[in-house]
Amino acid sequence: MYPAKAHARKVTEHFFSKQSKTKAAYFIAGSKLKLYPYCDMPGPLRQNRYFYYLSGVNQISGCYILYQTHIDKLTLFLPDVDEDDIMWSGLPLFPEEAVQKYDVDEVLYASVVDTVLKELAESGTKIFTTDTDEYAKSSFAKYVIPGDKHFFYALDEARLIKDSFEIELLRKAAKITDNSHLAVMSALPIEKNEGHIHAEFLYHSIRQGSKFSAYDPICCSGPNCGTLHYIKNDQDMAGKESVLIDAGAEWECYAADVTRCFPINGKWTKEHLEIYNAVLDMQTQCMAQIRPGAQWEDVHFLAHKVLIKNFLDLGIFVGNEDEIFKSGVSTCFFPHGLGHLLGLDTHDVGGRANYEDPNKMLAYLRVRRPLQAGMVVTNEPGIYFSPFLMAPALKDPKLNKFIQQEIVDKYMYIGGVRIEDDILVTETGHENLTGITSDPDEISKIVLAGISKGKEGFHVIV
Amino acid sequence: MYPAKAHARKVTEHFFSKQSKTKAAYFIAGSKLKLYPYCDMPGPLRQNRYFYYLSGVNQISGCYILYQTHIDKLTLFLPDVDEDDIMWSGLPLFPEEAVQKYDVDEVLYASVVDTVLKELAESGTKIFTTDTDEYAKSSFAKYVIPGDKHFFYALDEARLIKDSFEIELLRKAAKITDNSHLAVMSALPIEKNEGHIHAEFLYHSIRQGSKFSAYDPICCSGPNCGTLHYIKNDQDMAGKESVLIDAGAEWECYAADVTRCFPINGKWTKEHLEIYNAVLDMQTQCMAQIRPGAQWEDVHFLAHKVLIKNFLDLGIFVGNEDEIFKSGVSTCFFPHGLGHLLGLDTHDVGGRANYEDPNKMLAYLRVRRPLQAGMVVTNEPGIYFSPFLMAPALKDPKLNKFIQQEIVDKYMYIGGVRIEDDILVTETGHENLTGITSDPDEISKIVLAGISKGKEGFHVIV
Repeated sequence: MYPAKAHARKVTEHFFSKQSKTKAAYFIAGSKLKLYPYCDMPGPLRQNRYFYYLSGVNQISGCYILYQTHIDKLTLFLPDVDEDDIMWSGLPLFPEEAVQKYDVDEVLYASVVDTVLKELAESGTKIFTTDTDEYAKSSFAKYVIPGDKHFFYALDEARLIKDSFEIELLRKAAKITDNSHLAVMSALPIEKNEGHIHAEFLYHSIRQGSKFSAYDPICCSGPNCGTLHYIKNDQDMAGKESVLIDAGAEWECYAADVTRCFPINGKWTKEHLEIYNAVLDMQTQCMAQIRPGAQWEDVHFLAHKVLIKNFLDLGIFVGNEDEIFKSGVSTCFFPHGLGHLLGLDTHDVGGRANYEDPNKMLAYLRVRRPLQAGMVVTNEPGIYFSPFLMAPALKDPKLNKFIQQEIVDKYMYIGGVRIEDDILVTETGHENLTGITSDPDEISKIVLAGISKGKEGFHVIV
Repeated sequence: MYPAKAHARKVTEHFFSKQSKTKAAYFIAGSKLKLYPYCDMPGPLRQNRYFYYLSGVNQISGCYILYQTHIDKLTLFLPDVDEDDIMWSGLPLFPEEAVQKYDVDEVLYASVVDTVLKELAESGTKIFTTDTDEYAKSSFAKYVIPGDKHFFYALDEARLIKDSFEIELLRKAAKITDNSHLAVMSALPIEKNEGHIHAEFLYHSIRQGSKFSAYDPICCSGPNCGTLHYIKNDQDMAGKESVLIDAGAEWECYAADVTRCFPINGKWTKEHLEIYNAVLDMQTQCMAQIRPGAQWEDVHFLAHKVLIKNFLDLGIFVGNEDEIFKSGVSTCFFPHGLGHLLGLDTHDVGGRANYEDPNKMLAYLRVRRPLQAGMVVTNEPGIYFSPFLMAPALKDPKLNKFIQQEIVDKYMYIGGVRIEDDILVTETGHENLTGITSDPDEISKIVLAGISKGKEGFHVIV
């Protein structure tokens, strides 16, 4: 059972670590289905993550959760029964079932929220909430205190460190994701367009029960691999050499986030493999640093240093290693952060990013604190050859002196390489939750084995 | 090219059919990406249908369209360029490209919306809009007139009658949907759970370039087929006989909406085939009535009459045909409407439903007007054996006298059957846009052919 109550207690620990103890309650609304404009169809229900963390309830529109810290009581409010809807959708979950299914002390209907909150407020309990967005016009919005900074701090610090139940959910999301990446690598005979890769990944994820992706898959080929947030996923792969797929399944609201790259015909070109090995070197050296106490900025800097070393070896950069590092020119090839926290959100809370950091090497880094056991981070270095990323450097004499443009040109057709795994920080170091291989020889073998089956090995009939 | 300007002129025709001509303009905002709460990830962008109808622009967040009726000028406003975003997403669409790509006279940036609307308003042009939801706090919200009933009337009447370009888009959505249903029927060796059917349908739709479904697929088996809005799609199919899948692809914002039923092992059981043939009889007899001038209520009533005739033959009903019809008891087995309009929305605008109709046989009917050439409607009769649907009738002596409970019991394991096709009303009658067979023998052959391949005929590796 999802440990909702342990989560509530953990929030409380953090909440009162910053202030003296008071009679406090937490009240958070679950997401509500919203109809598309002028349409009787709702969009997909993405459960509010703070609500889920304190309840474990997914895919029921219009719930509320209430936790009373002073009596350690967790109350779930289910939406009132809509008699008309039973005809169309069957019986809803009843309170007597919900109290068995979820780790809560009590289950009531939403119709009594007003009474319950009123009594609490009148008895001197402060009721904290994230926001009243789902019920701003309700009669009970007036009883809650939205946006308290200590409350957000407590929620985020609690979510930061995953417990064993959460780790199992992340493991399952990772496993589904492994299988789906393997399927993508194995199906080149029927992947002639980036859209086919997109379809293949989702197919295998959904088959395994992950109906929602943790994020929109990025499926790109050739020079498109240099567009970091590529969303088109619709170009033909003919005449190209490289594929980059960044895709992860979601399992009970927990995310996986994995990137793999492979050669379209199974055989790495010289340049593709050189860049792949450079990124693998970045990832491997960074991986070795992941343990409690490691400062993520340092690990991120290490990734840049390994990139620079590799670029000097390949002749892409010329000059002094330290000077190159200090110039920041490597951010034109590796502009994003080394990794982010992972959990209920793909970019999970608690990282303390500073997007205003004047150091451009750090501005996009989403984790700005030492690692702790129980954190899950992605380790995802990348190298990109993108005209847009390089443009500022090529114009700047302080930077372009380090770049051998004619060598860079030879790599442009690859677009980019990223290798991304999901890493649990453990007491003694780390554990890689991602199982799909990133070994270039293994990858080549998988792609070639798929190709050898030919189209007939697949059942696509369209 | 999507005929945005012809659409704007068509709206104008309807707009001034209800009132005297004035200097009028239409201004509609496209959808904007919205981040999930406390998260840097947006939900999917579902383009505003009214905006799309007047622009043809999909998947660009934050556009506006302006049509000036008195000078027949269509202006598209693109979102202002976000320099930071170029680094991540590459170059956006520029105005000089957009004016070639879309059927508009002029393309400007959103930064000048305020100036343009201000000038228009000051020059005495009334600027009509559907709503200001996307820009309520903008400086230019004050220039527009939201919610004008004539404007909505004109938009909906224009969208009601599809032009040849729209019909081609609907045809393409229908074709993708046909192929995906065929794939589902052909893959029983790897469909052991309703979720596998869901995955199979989406896979084939996405492979064909339809990244968004027109609606969430309903994939059910056995008694679950009796739940009209079944959304779980996650139950094992072992030990069950029947499958119902209601799923449609979307193509450039236009919808398909198709339901097929089949026997899990390829061989219809006696009861399943009896009900299937009854529904097919309902659909076939209704289909023959689809032509300009036909009153949809009458066609819907016909469906009930054919159901009643079949139920009398099967012994499910006893009594007088007319009395049974008048009692309304057939709504307990066929509670929904015969069909709805189809277009940019799956339940398209202009149907003039009356959900408050005291006649319960009509309350859920979404089309309450005579058919016209150019309308597209679904023809989707169904018969369901659901405890929830039957409960009121079984308690009511005025109704339960017509029902042979012990006969009904024999059919409960089927859950339900629906057959749904998408029908274009033509000048002379109709054209069925749906190509996937609904012939029970053909369906049986397709399922059996798939089964004969065995698991090895499929590439699923998970």
